[in-house]
Amino acid sequence: MQSRELFVLTYGALVAQLCKDYEKDEDVNTCLDRMGYGIGVRLIEDFLARSAVKKCRSYSETAEMIAQYDICTTNHSRALPLPAWMSETCRDTLVAFKMYLGVTPSVSCTSATGDEFSLILDKNPLVDFVEELPAERASLCYCNLLCGVIRGALEMVHLAAEVTFLQDKLKGDAVTEIGIIFLRKTEDKKHKRNK
Amino acid sequence: MQSRELFVLTYGALVAQLCKDYEKDEDVNTCLDRMGYGIGVRLIEDFLARSAVKKCRSYSETAEMIAQYDICTTNHSRALPLPAWMSETCRDTLVAFKMYLGVTPSVSCTSATGDEFSLILDKNPLVDFVEELPAERASLCYCNLLCGVIRGALEMVHLAAEVTFLQDKLKGDAVTEIGIIFLRKTEDKKHKRNK
Repeated sequence: MQSRELFVLTYGALVAQLCKDYEKDEDVNTCLDRMGYGIGVRLIEDFLARSAVKKCRSYSETAEMIAQYDICTTNHSRALPLPAWMSETCRDTLVAFKMYLGVTPSVSCTSATGDEFSLILDKNPLVDFVEELPAERASLCYCNLLCGVIRGALEMVHLAAEVTFLQDKLKGDAVTEIGIIFLRKTEDKKHKRNK
Repeated sequence: MQSRELFVLTYGALVAQLCKDYEKDEDVNTCLDRMGYGIGVRLIEDFLARSAVKKCRSYSETAEMIAQYDICTTNHSRALPLPAWMSETCRDTLVAFKMYLGVTPSVSCTSATGDEFSLILDKNPLVDFVEELPAERASLCYCNLLCGVIRGALEMVHLAAEVTFLQDKLKGDAVTEIGIIFLRKTEDKKHKRNK
């Protein structure tokens, strides 16, 4: 129903403002990530409510509910299937991308340890109006807010993760790739703790 | 399809950043309006393309195309119908609100001169996550970006206007009201000029 152009342009205004505020790209990236984290922490409530998943309950419900979303085993992928808990988290992330950005990334999992996966965006809606990064902003992670959002949302379901851009079309890469590495998996999901 | 929460929270982060940058509410308001103007100038292209209206062509086509959107002659309104050209502009604005924010405002026109109208938002999606303005930010027009967007978009179709918040639920008013006053109406629409 709703189109995303106003959002995309508003996001552009936010990045432009931060570039005005901070000289160093790294500081802009950090700020976007921090903002995104705060958004993710709040957005997860909305996501859980909408996707009818109860927080801290078995993820198998989620998996069932979103069974219609097949994880794309494209040629980006080598080591699928993921471990079950991660596969479910991964699918949730895909549902969230579809829900909030209107796109479904494909998934890549090339790690032997099985504690990470990547989201591959052939088309990144957030950069619709961006042609290329200015030369003096070569280290800017324009969409770094997204990493923060994912990090914040995952943390709220007890999954601490490192989320970074591994590839970025804006920097000349063939695709945009967001890498998610889980730092530790708490036991909350399996054995619900008493408060 | 797409939900607006990510946009609404991102907008909140933008306003928070500007509040950090500028001490005076007036400066934040001006900045939001200026950003919105830049967005409106770009968004109008998207809007015209989507709504299949050709720029600088007769507005009657628009009126026809969007005939399904009736201007709500609610009890806010006293002097409808508006003059034809303004009525059409007004309807376009309603279509744009629906398209980009997912809501349709009602319209109020109480001016005897017929050069202004108001958009009444019973529900303002941009403030979904905002409870109230902090005491020290009493003069902040939280959604001032919208005024800028409307101003920028109208200017691109040769309608210079003053766009401001007349009422704001965030400030305790019963509704949120955006006032649009046309400053002059150029003749471009009736007599297309040669470049």
